[in-house]
Amino acid sequence: MAKITDYSKEELKQLEKELLVQYDEYVKAGLKLDMSRGKPAPSQLDLANGMLDALDSYTTESGLDARNYGVLDGLPEMKKIFSDAFGIPAKQIIVGGNASLNLMFDAMMRFMVFGTEGYTPWGRLEKVKFLCPAPGYDRHFGITERLGIEMITVPMTEEGPDMDMVEKLVAEDASVKGIWCVPKYSNPQGICYSDETVKRLASMKTAAADFRIFWDNAYGIHPIFEDVEVLNILEEAKAAGHPNRPLYFASTSKISFPGAGVSFVAASEEMIAEIKGVMTYQTIGHDKLNQLRHVKFFKDAQGLKAHMQLLADAMRPKFEMVLNKLEKELADTGLLSWTCPKGGYFVAVDTLDGCAKETVRLVKEAGVVMTGAGATYPYKNDPKDTNIRIAPTYPTLDELDKAMDIFCLCVKLAGVQKLLSK
Amino acid sequence: MAKITDYSKEELKQLEKELLVQYDEYVKAGLKLDMSRGKPAPSQLDLANGMLDALDSYTTESGLDARNYGVLDGLPEMKKIFSDAFGIPAKQIIVGGNASLNLMFDAMMRFMVFGTEGYTPWGRLEKVKFLCPAPGYDRHFGITERLGIEMITVPMTEEGPDMDMVEKLVAEDASVKGIWCVPKYSNPQGICYSDETVKRLASMKTAAADFRIFWDNAYGIHPIFEDVEVLNILEEAKAAGHPNRPLYFASTSKISFPGAGVSFVAASEEMIAEIKGVMTYQTIGHDKLNQLRHVKFFKDAQGLKAHMQLLADAMRPKFEMVLNKLEKELADTGLLSWTCPKGGYFVAVDTLDGCAKETVRLVKEAGVVMTGAGATYPYKNDPKDTNIRIAPTYPTLDELDKAMDIFCLCVKLAGVQKLLSK
Repeated sequence: MAKITDYSKEELKQLEKELLVQYDEYVKAGLKLDMSRGKPAPSQLDLANGMLDALDSYTTESGLDARNYGVLDGLPEMKKIFSDAFGIPAKQIIVGGNASLNLMFDAMMRFMVFGTEGYTPWGRLEKVKFLCPAPGYDRHFGITERLGIEMITVPMTEEGPDMDMVEKLVAEDASVKGIWCVPKYSNPQGICYSDETVKRLASMKTAAADFRIFWDNAYGIHPIFEDVEVLNILEEAKAAGHPNRPLYFASTSKISFPGAGVSFVAASEEMIAEIKGVMTYQTIGHDKLNQLRHVKFFKDAQGLKAHMQLLADAMRPKFEMVLNKLEKELADTGLLSWTCPKGGYFVAVDTLDGCAKETVRLVKEAGVVMTGAGATYPYKNDPKDTNIRIAPTYPTLDELDKAMDIFCLCVKLAGVQKLLSK
Repeated sequence: MAKITDYSKEELKQLEKELLVQYDEYVKAGLKLDMSRGKPAPSQLDLANGMLDALDSYTTESGLDARNYGVLDGLPEMKKIFSDAFGIPAKQIIVGGNASLNLMFDAMMRFMVFGTEGYTPWGRLEKVKFLCPAPGYDRHFGITERLGIEMITVPMTEEGPDMDMVEKLVAEDASVKGIWCVPKYSNPQGICYSDETVKRLASMKTAAADFRIFWDNAYGIHPIFEDVEVLNILEEAKAAGHPNRPLYFASTSKISFPGAGVSFVAASEEMIAEIKGVMTYQTIGHDKLNQLRHVKFFKDAQGLKAHMQLLADAMRPKFEMVLNKLEKELADTGLLSWTCPKGGYFVAVDTLDGCAKETVRLVKEAGVVMTGAGATYPYKNDPKDTNIRIAPTYPTLDELDKAMDIFCLCVKLAGVQKLLSK
């Protein structure tokens, strides 16, 4: 079978005609499906329903009444689960509220208003820039843009951000204050940072003394096909003499409940003290009953990881369906490329140049809302207009089956029409 | 009986001797009691234990799955309870996380980084000042001080802050950007702002166009002896042509559970839009399961207020004990004055000039930790060293009985020693 990209004009016109007939039928069928966000399916959430009545007592291990005020930085038993599961000493962990996004936003706001380690607050500088490996997580870019921080797009490779470019930028420009990283099963490509990438991030020379790595390990214990080991940035940065460089974030949003999970931020002891130095004015403490609920339900890090296996089992058929459909419908057509993730929440694909927006538009007309094309890039600007994020978790298998048929068809239709327009 | 302040040196010396004998016995008895914070007693929290298993379903009225992502500004049914209970249109309410303190901190951070209504962000100004009616809430002053905002102490009267002084300061000085208010059963005096005070705050001319009232209605539905009506600042400010001036905060921290309640911020629709314009980058949404838990437990605003009656009944004997002890031991001695609160969480007293710190020190030596003297003033500096906050809720009645005996004794001892030193 010839690649569609090698078709003659006549062959392309014939194919377009066939595709349009199929497409019209989908439009008439009037499917309604929202695949725009990385939301867990209700069936995944059901696996954690035991948590809803897990609170057989409101007393913590140390005898504290979790209903009342107190404990700024989290219950020791909650810290221990995170500590064991993520390999971070408990004293380097602060337990947060229901979202690590909030902890990242707070960290940015602290740097804007108070600065860090005594350096000038970022909000008082003429110019602040951030490195944004892309495709990446739209909400990272959203925070950065809202704060008026200039975003510099860094291409992703199969080992993580293009480190030659990162090293050059941070060495040359003291206004580059940080980088966003999703180091494991990255959003949206599912890429795991190589050991070399982590070591280079930890040890690189930065012109800014207060350079910070926002290490959003959102999918740190979220394998689907294979549990990949990614080096611990906190250890590597310490070994490289830059202990205060990384801020490490994670949560149970995609483990227990997205709206009612528990988050944490981890950092060097010096940074933890700095964070607490502001946090003590911000809150009396986060929801300890919800922490205790999580402790009672998961029991320990082993229990947490066992739960992740249940989730992996629930999600795997959906990822297999997406990847099988792509393989069956689009392999060797020349119209689409993609990486097979080993875990996480997404499959990212790249269309022909200039076809992502049109593909997503066509899919939407046929009743399936996907993540907006461009959303995975700073300023929502995907320079080549190729990247699309597929979020397979929320629909049922049946819905996903239909949605992927529509998606594959639209990739072809947009691709063929692009080729015809040349 | 003559006032102790009128005693002769000889009488004072004799009294001191007697007091010291009693005091030594208390020290030897070695009581251990922490009355430093306004914490509810476990018996109060027990009244809300039904909330722990109130979640018979995770589906909201509109059919939403409260376990999953979504709903930035709170469940409509949670908003409705707050709306009905506090007399604020639901569209002017954003439901927050477990603490209104966090919402106040966030509001301050937003003004520092983004400003409001297009005016210069406060963090970029040379000087920002805040009016701090005192005695007041130490955590308000803490946020303000941490942000480097200059605090100006405004004396409290029986009708609220000294409005002549407030009006003068805000009219003269454009760097005065706001005022902290606890308008009902104020912390620590239990003062309720008069109608005139609220109207003057709402309508006063301010040199700063972006002047803001931080209206912390922490005890808005917390009567003990009498349910006092305080005017709604949102309505008054709107009527006076300054709809964007107040930010109104409250929570269920002292209704359901301090660590696991639900908070809200209310404001004009324009301010609500401005808050959401930042909040949408900060979080995907607060804990909806906990909101639903509150909705299921309280059902409606009437249920909420009925619960407040149970709490009032539980707290009233403690307040009566405090007030009766003060009356019995210290009325007419000339050594102490106080106001009788009609609700809230505290009783505030004033010793002779220069006796508050010494009284709290003596009490602590005898085993009872009270709120630090001075904590109720900006920079922890009570200029006359007279104010002490009594927090009667946490101890049992028996403990409170002993603690108040010790307290009254120490007021006398410190007072007598002060008189002798003159």
